[in-house]
Amino acid sequence: MGEDRDLTTIRREIRSITDNILELLSRRLDLSIEAGSAKQKQNLPIEDIGAEAELRHHVLEKCGALGIDPDRALRVLNILVDDSVRAQKKQESKPKISHMQMFALAKELEAAGEKIIHLEVGEPDAPPPKPVIDSAINGMKEGYIRYSTAQGLLELRQAIASDYRGSLGVDIHPDQVLVTPGSRFAIYLAISNMLRRGDGLITFDPLWPAYKECAEAAGGRAITIHTNLEDKWVPRQEDFQAALDSGAKMMALNYPCNPTGKSLALEELRSLVQEAQRRGVTVLGDETYRLFSFKRSPSLLEVADSNFVLASTFSKAYRMTGFRIGYVISSKEFVSKLVKVQSLLLTNVPEFIQKAAVKALECQDDATRYAAVIESRMKDAVTQLKHLPVSFYEPDGGFYIFPRVNKDAFDSGESVMRLLKEKNVAIAPGTGFGDYSQFLRLSICQATDQVQEGLSRISGLLK
Amino acid sequence: MGEDRDLTTIRREIRSITDNILELLSRRLDLSIEAGSAKQKQNLPIEDIGAEAELRHHVLEKCGALGIDPDRALRVLNILVDDSVRAQKKQESKPKISHMQMFALAKELEAAGEKIIHLEVGEPDAPPPKPVIDSAINGMKEGYIRYSTAQGLLELRQAIASDYRGSLGVDIHPDQVLVTPGSRFAIYLAISNMLRRGDGLITFDPLWPAYKECAEAAGGRAITIHTNLEDKWVPRQEDFQAALDSGAKMMALNYPCNPTGKSLALEELRSLVQEAQRRGVTVLGDETYRLFSFKRSPSLLEVADSNFVLASTFSKAYRMTGFRIGYVISSKEFVSKLVKVQSLLLTNVPEFIQKAAVKALECQDDATRYAAVIESRMKDAVTQLKHLPVSFYEPDGGFYIFPRVNKDAFDSGESVMRLLKEKNVAIAPGTGFGDYSQFLRLSICQATDQVQEGLSRISGLLK
Repeated sequence: MGEDRDLTTIRREIRSITDNILELLSRRLDLSIEAGSAKQKQNLPIEDIGAEAELRHHVLEKCGALGIDPDRALRVLNILVDDSVRAQKKQESKPKISHMQMFALAKELEAAGEKIIHLEVGEPDAPPPKPVIDSAINGMKEGYIRYSTAQGLLELRQAIASDYRGSLGVDIHPDQVLVTPGSRFAIYLAISNMLRRGDGLITFDPLWPAYKECAEAAGGRAITIHTNLEDKWVPRQEDFQAALDSGAKMMALNYPCNPTGKSLALEELRSLVQEAQRRGVTVLGDETYRLFSFKRSPSLLEVADSNFVLASTFSKAYRMTGFRIGYVISSKEFVSKLVKVQSLLLTNVPEFIQKAAVKALECQDDATRYAAVIESRMKDAVTQLKHLPVSFYEPDGGFYIFPRVNKDAFDSGESVMRLLKEKNVAIAPGTGFGDYSQFLRLSICQATDQVQEGLSRISGLLK
Repeated sequence: MGEDRDLTTIRREIRSITDNILELLSRRLDLSIEAGSAKQKQNLPIEDIGAEAELRHHVLEKCGALGIDPDRALRVLNILVDDSVRAQKKQESKPKISHMQMFALAKELEAAGEKIIHLEVGEPDAPPPKPVIDSAINGMKEGYIRYSTAQGLLELRQAIASDYRGSLGVDIHPDQVLVTPGSRFAIYLAISNMLRRGDGLITFDPLWPAYKECAEAAGGRAITIHTNLEDKWVPRQEDFQAALDSGAKMMALNYPCNPTGKSLALEELRSLVQEAQRRGVTVLGDETYRLFSFKRSPSLLEVADSNFVLASTFSKAYRMTGFRIGYVISSKEFVSKLVKVQSLLLTNVPEFIQKAAVKALECQDDATRYAAVIESRMKDAVTQLKHLPVSFYEPDGGFYIFPRVNKDAFDSGESVMRLLKEKNVAIAPGTGFGDYSQFLRLSICQATDQVQEGLSRISGLLK
């Protein structure tokens, strides 16, 4: 910079550069919208991972030539691309129905006196083990109703660490654990702290939509890899590589998968995770359904030793949906970042609820018995579905089946609305999980007779 | 745009414009850093509301001349200014101690066997009314432990609306209420949904730091108005106008104020709120301490009929800190936006905790009795403080006194550390609430003898 210049001179130059930047940005956005129209006319998708990767390489070269800091340049590029994508997407208009909306509609009908069969949400039909409720009550009576530390009770973090030591033989320190109000919040914290504006999160469709929505809420973008029933929902290598080339910061995995029921084998998981990590991508593993595995479903903790975030919850395994408690396991450093944000947003998870979670981890037999119930319901549902004109991957675990309806011009959004209104069965449409309008997601965690009756009513529609 | 151009041509132009933008942004950031150094040498603050307002006017003129969309231009300008401020702030280095850190340090000492007097946090010393705990326990036993709607139980939203109708005579519809896990989350939701990146939030220092931190976590910026004890903590008109000129989107008010205990008179509040609203600024009112008013403290709901967000909590009035429950009151439209985000991040607040809150609102006599206890502790503390070499505004309400220590070169950060280590009294330093290194924040919500003993120990340090 040489000698000091005065503030007025510097400010004058800043003002003139600001003018130039504004003109160029405005021009760039106009061009993006023009490109968007051109893509629509050619029926091309708005997001083009290949074109983006190329632009990134170009920018990096330019940085070398001009002596610009590449980190800063890529951050700006992310913002520019993000702006473009948002501007182009505004031109699209296809409202999708989600499983949450179906649940809300079903609740409305129930409030009006209808009896609805719920195959749309993943809520266990049984209450938590009794000691869990007793522990929450005692916790309240004993005064665990005051402000607490944001990271969570040491007692609970120790119990979680020791649970993973027992079941997987992995060594987790309690400082690596953060107690959160449910896995949704765990996922939001992890994603919003990893992504800066415009940064990408790789996801594999079909998928529970919260990961993408959290990325977008945090100012980031989802980089979506479409997978197919024909491939048994395994992502294709070339798609995976292109997504990595797009400069993503994070990748979300969810096995057993909501909605497909797919699990990866240990070696498949290892290769995916290690390739991502080799490319500097942090892996977020949501293992909400791992206790409901009908064959071995490996954990992220078995294959990753750095750059990972595991999110899980007490909601499904211990039927504690309404208590809102889950957790993150990651490096001490990343966890301590998340603790600061949780402290700012929430102060802490109520201590008496944490006391209930400690007790839940002592109820393994009860949890295993419920998992066996789910497995048997899944078997029955699979048998029943085989008589219908649908194709599906037989779930390795979880609460859901994701069949494709083999009927021309089947529209899942329209069909689930008809099913709800005419047959009083609530089902999630495939469109809530990506571009899968021929698919339905069926949850099998309600009582066996309910699931069977629900499937019978559906069969009427499909035949 | 005339005729259609092909995608390759458009992309080529986008690429070349991208190059130009990157060069200019890089140059602009270098200039900002240079300006930051120049300011430091002249001992000028990094954020200069006047200079910013001028730049905004200039950009708006430019937009008119060039036919650029002013909304888009101002959004970009916010991002540019935000980038500059962040780059310049990185050069600063003054770590501040907050009341939360003091609490954590005090807890560590307690864990090591020390007995600490807590004058640093605002946690009521009494448990909640007994019916509140009973209601939570019954709620759990009755099965209010399942997924629920994100907005909160209608029963609770009705009770909140009717509570405001009863106490203030204002008409609130239950659809205007969102139940949140504490007022922190209410504030975060409101701020993060109102501010887009780089947008400003006006705050009045000295102030509880969460508003600014939420604005920054959401990618926005705090536009801080410094107020003075000499002015009885009332903001100066010229500062307020300059802040409005800076193009802020939102303004946070907190009366009775944490940390000063200041409340505004009805007409003062009305004029502040109406002037902000006239300028298109949404007003966020945090009324956490309103039930602890020693003279009438008006509510935002009495002076605002649109563009407002009220945040409050059951933590202080009903001593429910560890239950984590609060709420937002705003327009139906804004509330329905926040509901979507809460649904994404948290699903819902546990229903049995909402049941406890319903019961709390039936315990008004109990709440009023506790408020009287706090008022009498405050009187005693004020009397005791008058014998010390401190100056302060006599609180109109709340849990805190914010005295300035009349000693040359008094450093609150260093002093509170000494007090904690040598006298086992935990106090929050003024620096946690803005640029107030000669001030201390004393919380008076612990038992009377504790507060008195704590103040005696402090007097030793001050005399």
